Amino acid sequence: MQDKDTYFMQMALELAEKGRGAVAPNPMVGAIIVKDGRIIGSGYHEKIGEGHAEVNAFRSATEDVAGATIYVTLEPCSHFGKTPPCSDKIIEKKIGRVVIAALDPNPLVSERGVKKLQAAGIEVVTGILAEESSRLNEIFMKYIVKKEPFVVMKAAMSLDGKIATRTGESQWITGPAARERVHQLRSALTGIMVGVQTVIMDDPQLTSRIPGGKNPLRIIVDSTLRIPLEAKVLQDQDVAKTLIATTEWADRNKAALLEAAGIELLTVPTKDGRTDLKALMKVLGERGIDSILLEGGATLNFAALQAGIVDKVQVYIAPKLIGGETAKTPVGGEGIEKLSQAFSVIELKASTVGEDILLEGYLSKNE
Amino acid sequence: MQDKDTYFMQMALELAEKGRGAVAPNPMVGAIIVKDGRIIGSGYHEKIGEGHAEVNAFRSATEDVAGATIYVTLEPCSHFGKTPPCSDKIIEKKIGRVVIAALDPNPLVSERGVKKLQAAGIEVVTGILAEESSRLNEIFMKYIVKKEPFVVMKAAMSLDGKIATRTGESQWITGPAARERVHQLRSALTGIMVGVQTVIMDDPQLTSRIPGGKNPLRIIVDSTLRIPLEAKVLQDQDVAKTLIATTEWADRNKAALLEAAGIELLTVPTKDGRTDLKALMKVLGERGIDSILLEGGATLNFAALQAGIVDKVQVYIAPKLIGGETAKTPVGGEGIEKLSQAFSVIELKASTVGEDILLEGYLSKNE
Repeated sequence: MQDKDTYFMQMALELAEKGRGAVAPNPMVGAIIVKDGRIIGSGYHEKIGEGHAEVNAFRSATEDVAGATIYVTLEPCSHFGKTPPCSDKIIEKKIGRVVIAALDPNPLVSERGVKKLQAAGIEVVTGILAEESSRLNEIFMKYIVKKEPFVVMKAAMSLDGKIATRTGESQWITGPAARERVHQLRSALTGIMVGVQTVIMDDPQLTSRIPGGKNPLRIIVDSTLRIPLEAKVLQDQDVAKTLIATTEWADRNKAALLEAAGIELLTVPTKDGRTDLKALMKVLGERGIDSILLEGGATLNFAALQAGIVDKVQVYIAPKLIGGETAKTPVGGEGIEKLSQAFSVIELKASTVGEDILLEGYLSKNE
Repeated sequence: MQDKDTYFMQMALELAEKGRGAVAPNPMVGAIIVKDGRIIGSGYHEKIGEGHAEVNAFRSATEDVAGATIYVTLEPCSHFGKTPPCSDKIIEKKIGRVVIAALDPNPLVSERGVKKLQAAGIEVVTGILAEESSRLNEIFMKYIVKKEPFVVMKAAMSLDGKIATRTGESQWITGPAARERVHQLRSALTGIMVGVQTVIMDDPQLTSRIPGGKNPLRIIVDSTLRIPLEAKVLQDQDVAKTLIATTEWADRNKAALLEAAGIELLTVPTKDGRTDLKALMKVLGERGIDSILLEGGATLNFAALQAGIVDKVQVYIAPKLIGGETAKTPVGGEGIEKLSQAFSVIELKASTVGEDILLEGYLSKNE
């Protein structure tokens, strides 16, 4: 049965994917109803506030679903939210077998759907393509459990690991396709974070320049408020909001000037003489920031890795060689001393994006 | 006809590949004979000094080849070498049509085979999968034309572009599968080249540690003879030969000591205050070195790029992040100033090697 289950679950995952961008902060979910080897219904969570995948699948059914198998990419809910619990609906419809990819990550309700179904005498199989389902909803899976944002560290570098030439020229290392992908990602995530050094060096706007793109909250890590008052990110608060994460070391006069200009300052504790990034993530999570694109620079990237806040890494690699002993690389700071202390990346995979190659993977968490 | 031609040529290329390692410095060549849409013969150049691909294909033919089409990955030879000219053989066999991938790169004989065949009234098509055939024989293609070695620059780095930690620990960044590939490459190429700084830092042996592997000539670029007398590459001349490329700035006493130890010194001209790598390549080419694996370090790699001697680049990327502003990267030196001066890599492609990812491509030559 394993192969058939995997086959239908793969289809359900492809359906789930269709909800991308329309269901956040809900997870993407897909469902397929199969009877006697034939698909008799399918659906996915299409829009936040509207029907869950299971409900949409039942609605589309072309015949009686009693005794059928339903494949659903996430454990059916067992509680009343914006819609009645899907597990009740499955029981009511007399489904014979439920195949689930990932369990609900919320520890308060995880497996409650499964138990409810089993108590009603329904056969339940879990864990079919669970990893794939979790990765599909990687932001949701972290945020629902930890209430901290899912952090994607992104870098664009040459084939020899440089993010700029020795003179600091960095626009553009990668090609238009890679840059458009980054703008899509900026639109898909709720926050974007850079260190003040990047603002000083590159003066980026940090908005999403794709048609219909949403702008993430711009978070500038600036412990002593070195940000230039003429920085682009401080000019256009009508376009996107900027939040400066600073510390008790901040210059009070500069702080007053910034606040007068409508910029929000957030004072974060320090740890080992640096901004406590973990504490910052907690505060941002409480504010509803479920995901952050970390765009560097090198010093902040290393600090973020050390603080253990990075979940995913995306490195775009351009087909060029730059050289330079002093040219900057994506991760700077002090660096590790021994190879055994390196931050491990798992599930590293390569894909082609225009003329560039994207390597992406997940930080291995040994917590 | 294009599609069918490509189909059979692809098969011929796969046959050619079987000669890898056994025919150098000859090119790998494959041939397929097709009559009425059926393959009636096939062969490849199996071993240096033995039959060419065309001859082996004729030998294997299951019926009369008169009027058939022969697909051959490299232009049939027109001159007497170790074997009689294949173009004569094709004419003698009354082949009706000859489809060729790449022309002979040797400017002295290129297209002479084609003309001979055409003069005999045979239809000739060229350029079908020419690029693929040239890449298959990339070493031969360069060496036969320029009499200089084909240079592969190889690096092993972390996902953030580091070849060592800030303290210099570099063994091992990549995993066993990647390291074995490098040893295979060392065995396949006739030379291996590093800068003296790499010898001082890492004291590598630079031999091929695979069963039955051949050891390349070890070339150490050392303009002032800083090499430590106890370096591993100086101890085992019975296992592999070491050649030190030095300059007029070399310490004469050190030179005498090295020569007394059986190490060959080669005095190369200088250019802009550095060893003239282009001149070194010419000398090595004259000595029959057709291919070199350039294993760094960072300074020599940049000098090699600047000198325009690098043909191919292979970067193994390990799934780990190291950080460190002062940690070394694969290409150092002065570096370029503007992005428009970057060395362009073409045909960049990614593949998985064990736990690592290999990115490889060719240096774009705007000569």
